[in-house]
Amino acid sequence: MIKIPPFYLSGWDGDEKTYTDMKALVFDGSLQIVEIPKPRPVSNEVLIRILYSSICNTDLEIIKGYMGFKGVLGHEFVGEVVTKSSCYYGKKVVGEINCSCGECYLCNTGRMSHCPYRTVLGIQDHDGVFADYIVLPERNLHEIPDTLSLESAVFTEPLAAAIEIFEQIQIRPSHNVFIFGAGKLGLLISQVFRLNGCDTITFDVTEAKVKKARSMGINAVLVSSLSDLDKAEVCVDCTGNPAGINMALSHLYPRGKLVLKTTVATSEKIDLNQIVVNEFEIIGSRCGLFDPALSLLNQGLVDSKPMVSKIFDFKDIMKAFEYAAKPNTLKVLIRH
Amino acid sequence: MIKIPPFYLSGWDGDEKTYTDMKALVFDGSLQIVEIPKPRPVSNEVLIRILYSSICNTDLEIIKGYMGFKGVLGHEFVGEVVTKSSCYYGKKVVGEINCSCGECYLCNTGRMSHCPYRTVLGIQDHDGVFADYIVLPERNLHEIPDTLSLESAVFTEPLAAAIEIFEQIQIRPSHNVFIFGAGKLGLLISQVFRLNGCDTITFDVTEAKVKKARSMGINAVLVSSLSDLDKAEVCVDCTGNPAGINMALSHLYPRGKLVLKTTVATSEKIDLNQIVVNEFEIIGSRCGLFDPALSLLNQGLVDSKPMVSKIFDFKDIMKAFEYAAKPNTLKVLIRH
Repeated sequence: MIKIPPFYLSGWDGDEKTYTDMKALVFDGSLQIVEIPKPRPVSNEVLIRILYSSICNTDLEIIKGYMGFKGVLGHEFVGEVVTKSSCYYGKKVVGEINCSCGECYLCNTGRMSHCPYRTVLGIQDHDGVFADYIVLPERNLHEIPDTLSLESAVFTEPLAAAIEIFEQIQIRPSHNVFIFGAGKLGLLISQVFRLNGCDTITFDVTEAKVKKARSMGINAVLVSSLSDLDKAEVCVDCTGNPAGINMALSHLYPRGKLVLKTTVATSEKIDLNQIVVNEFEIIGSRCGLFDPALSLLNQGLVDSKPMVSKIFDFKDIMKAFEYAAKPNTLKVLIRH
Repeated sequence: MIKIPPFYLSGWDGDEKTYTDMKALVFDGSLQIVEIPKPRPVSNEVLIRILYSSICNTDLEIIKGYMGFKGVLGHEFVGEVVTKSSCYYGKKVVGEINCSCGECYLCNTGRMSHCPYRTVLGIQDHDGVFADYIVLPERNLHEIPDTLSLESAVFTEPLAAAIEIFEQIQIRPSHNVFIFGAGKLGLLISQVFRLNGCDTITFDVTEAKVKKARSMGINAVLVSSLSDLDKAEVCVDCTGNPAGINMALSHLYPRGKLVLKTTVATSEKIDLNQIVVNEFEIIGSRCGLFDPALSLLNQGLVDSKPMVSKIFDFKDIMKAFEYAAKPNTLKVLIRH
């Protein structure tokens, strides 16, 4: 464990003595567990002790250089508020990851998660949750119900991203839906579409992922079983592969909707003509709201248990990252 | 004038003697005026004598090889119905260009213009309007009001394509809108957005096009005056240039909508990540409905007169095509 330079710390004022140290997983070109001063809440922020966190594909992308982020990684968590003045003091909470200014044009038009002045927990200018403590604005927090396990509550953030699709476009129960990719996000999206009554098929290139999805009651098949003539009203690309968009477009009915969830740093060649001639609609989709996600998890309508591949203790988080990067690993949880 | 082989004729039954000849502009790798048998209506079709037609960018693209179409070109027209049994007999009409089967899944879900079995007037398996006569299904026709000039009515089809944007997405009067391209379609789209009360700016790279747009009361400026920070809630790409999409995306607010009107045969590299992170929506847009277009033209709310660059007689249509292909030419009309 090493002492790290202070350039990525929130609230660092240069006076090291006023801080208590904590352990954190820091990315600074390479990944390492270090001791850094415990963050101190400013203005509307509260201090949260992390109880559980989990590894997201975005974390794996960041350590490949995506977003150019340096600092404490991680944004999926359950924690306990330790700031005594907070109305959440002693409560177990999950937290929305975008910390927006609340005052700009985008914030005032309901697009807080797109605030140009925002910081994003563990992704952009805000130290993340692979640490003993974090700070977050109090308004970002949601108390988790007593009836919901911590291991399930940690799925709130990725499940909210799945539900975001339904905030953006009208999905009719009569729509047939193709979901490309049976990874972590694909399995959550498949579960949410199933709740809507849609005729949904989930495709993957990997036999093991198809099997896993089927074991969860999801209607999954190998993508090779798809014929050129098979079309859907809604396609969702969560392949994590830039080629996914062209595959999805080729299976869309005219005036169909393609939801893009894949975030990769490369560009892809797109045949614009087919978009115009077929009047396709392409919708980029990112973070979502936490309340509906907590509700579905708490009612057991979305099942996160089969998606947990392994739980590591925080001291073994380097091993957890290695494990998470392996093919066919689903969610890796960290017990703090 | 040459006699052409019959492979692209509608309704050809091999018996040349039963046909009366007519003149038509045929594309068969090259463009030529030829004499071909006058088409004969079958089942629900009627025969229409063409009075006015006009040249669209799609026609100019087809003679470069787009769509692989061979036959009589042209799809924008005003004509008179000469089939005595039709309820439109003797009436002046415009006609929707997609001839759909009326029976398939897409037809039965309101997507007749996307019927996979459709023919398209002058574009796909259906001889077009640069001829003395055409046939079209009676249900495709719309009578033009007595108060509307033929020179204006010929704008019904392209204006319907402009109005299609409002059929597809909700445009709020409070939206600010950037329209890229002040060509024929761009000027019609700009006029329609103006009617909605939107704060609209139309951009072009050509000084002459900006001037022309301004002379029509459109708020137009050179695209070079746009700063990186300028953003819009809705962008419309009608540049006719595959690079247009990336320019438009770079000026979209998060959760903004980009309407794609450009049809070009090439693919373009797109940064998918920005679509997901900013939750952009991209909507391909093609043909529209004729009634609202006729209504706006008839009320004088859309002005087509300044958009007519020149009127040619049909015998001079080869010259008309040369003229239409020149930079800064707007609409070229053909008097039959």
